[in-house]
Amino acid sequence: MHAYMQPLSGYGVGKVVVSGHPNFKEGDLVLAWGTTGWEEYSVIAAPETLLKIQSTDVPLSYYTGILGMPGMTAYAGFYEVCTPQKGERVFVSAASGAVGQLVGQFAKLLGCYVVGSAGSKEKVDLLKNKFGFDEGFNYKEEPNFEAALKRYFPEGIDIYFDNVGGKMLDAVLLNMRIHGRIAVCGMISQYNLDQPEGVHNLVNIVGRRVRMQGFLAGDYLHLYPKYLQMVFPYIKEGKVVYVEDVSEGIESAPAALLGLFTGRNVGKKVVLVARE
Amino acid sequence: MHAYMQPLSGYGVGKVVVSGHPNFKEGDLVLAWGTTGWEEYSVIAAPETLLKIQSTDVPLSYYTGILGMPGMTAYAGFYEVCTPQKGERVFVSAASGAVGQLVGQFAKLLGCYVVGSAGSKEKVDLLKNKFGFDEGFNYKEEPNFEAALKRYFPEGIDIYFDNVGGKMLDAVLLNMRIHGRIAVCGMISQYNLDQPEGVHNLVNIVGRRVRMQGFLAGDYLHLYPKYLQMVFPYIKEGKVVYVEDVSEGIESAPAALLGLFTGRNVGKKVVLVARE
Repeated sequence: MHAYMQPLSGYGVGKVVVSGHPNFKEGDLVLAWGTTGWEEYSVIAAPETLLKIQSTDVPLSYYTGILGMPGMTAYAGFYEVCTPQKGERVFVSAASGAVGQLVGQFAKLLGCYVVGSAGSKEKVDLLKNKFGFDEGFNYKEEPNFEAALKRYFPEGIDIYFDNVGGKMLDAVLLNMRIHGRIAVCGMISQYNLDQPEGVHNLVNIVGRRVRMQGFLAGDYLHLYPKYLQMVFPYIKEGKVVYVEDVSEGIESAPAALLGLFTGRNVGKKVVLVARE
Repeated sequence: MHAYMQPLSGYGVGKVVVSGHPNFKEGDLVLAWGTTGWEEYSVIAAPETLLKIQSTDVPLSYYTGILGMPGMTAYAGFYEVCTPQKGERVFVSAASGAVGQLVGQFAKLLGCYVVGSAGSKEKVDLLKNKFGFDEGFNYKEEPNFEAALKRYFPEGIDIYFDNVGGKMLDAVLLNMRIHGRIAVCGMISQYNLDQPEGVHNLVNIVGRRVRMQGFLAGDYLHLYPKYLQMVFPYIKEGKVVYVEDVSEGIESAPAALLGLFTGRNVGKKVVLVARE
């Protein structure tokens, strides 16, 4: 198989070169839910984790993003974990990223008020002009996250889709509404610290009865067909768009990975290992 | 009305002295869901928040504890928020307190493995010998909470009923099992700090898909009749016991309140304002 590859090992898209499995034949396009490495050709020991790609009228790379694990993460995290209602106030961090851009668009389609944070003017422009968020702000230009959130959510936040953890989460905890929900998808601000930062405002979840839920898309893969049924028409009708940031060549993979931690990517980071 | 009173304003039990409401007459015993003050006689402006006490074959003070808000807190927090399963591993902090002692007993009745932490040898003895916990430990004698939890939960914790927050919560987060649940009932270790302590290990809720839920019993008062139906037989049959720490005289109320923060009370703290 050779492949589009994500900068984290695990999820790739490729074409079958040789197959010993009756379900797959040479030339089939497949999506791997968790087995490809950083390599040009992969031996897949557990082909039952592969999914044959049927619809090729979308970019193949979409299967590492909107039609792959990030898509399932946004779908399960927003609809299943956040249990959103029309009209609720939704905040998304890392909002232009692989998952965040979808959460924001799903929330808008449901009729929510949606604000995203991101790390550059270019990304904030994407939020507002491409993804249809109501508002967006560049967290790097906000000396006080709590004040920024109060500005965009004077009546508080019903749903926080957390991709970053740390100080932003702490500020959100001061701005949650009663019976609010926090879906904790990731805490990228914390992954490379020797000692994670302390979150000081957790006590607010008691009086406000906030539900905070960590989750992984892998627990929801049974919903993948239902998700495709929802999202394909949205893609075709242009109601949901997806922005990718493609690096070409396997040699670009390490830099692509590191770039995630400094926010260099704009949109879902993908490494194109080989063109079809 | 004169009353048994809790050392926090709000929930009291008393006898009607004068009534202008058709539902209540002189001599009725009533439970107030949130309106009595620290006083010997109370004027109840919203009598619809009063509940007439029918069963007087239990100590009247029970209506400020096992049959009042702490009881509903334990019931809703354990059964509704923790969604427990038979055989799960349950940890309760402040386990001999008003709520904790009930959570542990409910968990045992469901067939869970239950460990509690408390702040003295006397309290730990209560946990093991009176409330039937499988294990208990004195947190004041544990230099390392994480190691203590590993000792009692070598395979991790499914359910943490949190009454204390802070360092114990941080240690629990390192010991949660996949799909674990944390019901956050209170964070008494944090209430009197100028700046709450940081919780550093929240990132663990992602990979372990932990659900953390703040709650207040007030959201579940519709379940009160169902709760009484469950708990009355348990009390009659001696399957659930309730330990109270009664101070006599309204003048004891301030000291009773302060004692909660140093853990001087053993069991549910009640102030007896006047005998019947």
